[in-house]
Amino acid sequence: MRVLITGAAGFIGAHLAELLRERGEIGGRRIGALALADQSLPDTTEEIAIRGDLADPGVMAQVAAFGPDVVFHLAAVPGGTSEQDYALGRRVNLDASLALFEALAGSGARPTVVYASSIAVYGTHLPDLVTPTMPLRPPLTYGAHKRVCEILLADFTRRGRLDGRSVRLPGIVARERSGAGLTSAFMSDILHALKAGEAFVCPVGPEATAWWMSARRCAENIAHAAVMDVSRADPGRAWPLPVLCLSIGDIIDTCSTRYGESRRGLVSFQPRPGVEAVFGRYPRLDDASARALGLRDDGSADELVRRALGEIN
Amino acid sequence: MRVLITGAAGFIGAHLAELLRERGEIGGRRIGALALADQSLPDTTEEIAIRGDLADPGVMAQVAAFGPDVVFHLAAVPGGTSEQDYALGRRVNLDASLALFEALAGSGARPTVVYASSIAVYGTHLPDLVTPTMPLRPPLTYGAHKRVCEILLADFTRRGRLDGRSVRLPGIVARERSGAGLTSAFMSDILHALKAGEAFVCPVGPEATAWWMSARRCAENIAHAAVMDVSRADPGRAWPLPVLCLSIGDIIDTCSTRYGESRRGLVSFQPRPGVEAVFGRYPRLDDASARALGLRDDGSADELVRRALGEIN
Repeated sequence: MRVLITGAAGFIGAHLAELLRERGEIGGRRIGALALADQSLPDTTEEIAIRGDLADPGVMAQVAAFGPDVVFHLAAVPGGTSEQDYALGRRVNLDASLALFEALAGSGARPTVVYASSIAVYGTHLPDLVTPTMPLRPPLTYGAHKRVCEILLADFTRRGRLDGRSVRLPGIVARERSGAGLTSAFMSDILHALKAGEAFVCPVGPEATAWWMSARRCAENIAHAAVMDVSRADPGRAWPLPVLCLSIGDIIDTCSTRYGESRRGLVSFQPRPGVEAVFGRYPRLDDASARALGLRDDGSADELVRRALGEIN
Repeated sequence: MRVLITGAAGFIGAHLAELLRERGEIGGRRIGALALADQSLPDTTEEIAIRGDLADPGVMAQVAAFGPDVVFHLAAVPGGTSEQDYALGRRVNLDASLALFEALAGSGARPTVVYASSIAVYGTHLPDLVTPTMPLRPPLTYGAHKRVCEILLADFTRRGRLDGRSVRLPGIVARERSGAGLTSAFMSDILHALKAGEAFVCPVGPEATAWWMSARRCAENIAHAAVMDVSRADPGRAWPLPVLCLSIGDIIDTCSTRYGESRRGLVSFQPRPGVEAVFGRYPRLDDASARALGLRDDGSADELVRRALGEIN
């Protein structure tokens, strides 16, 4: 099986590449060749490296020449960036994604495409329970483009040209502390601070709830999405990953229990309404259809924290 | 007020242009200049004519130079055509629409854009009542691209760059008898045949139900959509036009009452499952939100038939 990861040098892409290297297979199917596509890849990578911008036709030609059976499409610019730089967001999140789908659809081999969508498709002011049938109201251009790509991928699937599976990623932790363009960076930063025993100013209040997942579990879910049986699935072909819905208070409790009660006093709160509205009001999620397909959350807040910080796999 | 119609030489575009010429205003606001954009426009048109393909940057530059306050974006290739010729459908229905939205968004004048979407966004196997919150499952690439443009237009509206209003057009009658690329052409053809007293072979059965509207009423609704008060409307900014849900049997009854009982024997039925599935299973439509905004159906089956055949306005 020939496998391609786009955005392979990114946070989640790197975790996915590592997972696939370790396992050498997905769902019992051996990985014969792994190709990594990204603008920046280390010179030393042992896999096939496709360096450059997916929106560049020359780069897309290399993707087509590789001839993947499975593509994990993770390349994207984050929400804050695409909100400020519309043209960049359009080029990367919309144009390059559609160009990739078209190139793969034209191969005649009907490859499997796992598309990293986002919970940013849902919107703000959500009901108490987010269901698979509720209207989607993307509150940012990033989420609008993600939703558009879900629709286009489902249409290529209906046309019989691709086998598309969109998975909506929640807040994935723990990113390295930098988070340029990423409004949700505080979800990772608070974990690093609490483990290290450092003070942290939180841009949402202690009651703010979000949907959490570790990068390792996210990579496992993305890999599984390529082989899960979707033969009886909804033609929309899009699922939220199952999540742990945790408040900032839950996170502080969990880290204090694990790393020491002294952690409790380290967090002060300076809620920013814009951040709270988008990242602090996630309600319960009906993820039964995703769980039925074998996708899963981190198990518990403690497991989430330890897996996010690299203490367990 | 400077007004632009794209697809102005098409079936609905021509009706809209005629309506705007007659009235000289929309909702009490005078039309100072009317520009028509299409690939084919008569040489004699008295309005500003922009001839060519919207996907051509030169044509888009003319649109931008005109500087419209209100744009009616009707240009599209029909569903059958875009299903068979993916590249053409993408270029016209997706790329040109997005290029238009971007060009208008870049003007800084926040023009109003009325986008002619379609009931093709809903899907097949619909529930007994189609509601504003039900999941959309476009069954053809045409409907997928229409839905994508609704989302992109709503996002430009959210960004404050455009004032977008998508209206989902039902089966509009009565087109001239040719209907290349248009699977729903039978809805117009049966009206012409029954009025003329000619035999007609119907590709759906007598119980098949569809959503009907005359072209004149459609043009009135599209014009109204530019001025209706959407200040408290859902951010998705998309509405179905209110419809008459009528069976083929209802149409035959109505035409027979009006044009003579001899019409009843003229229609024979050779149902084609593909046509029935897409155009013969429309259930009731909850169009209350559209009616509340002042959009309206044809009033009765008899009015629909007479208006569709040009006997009343």
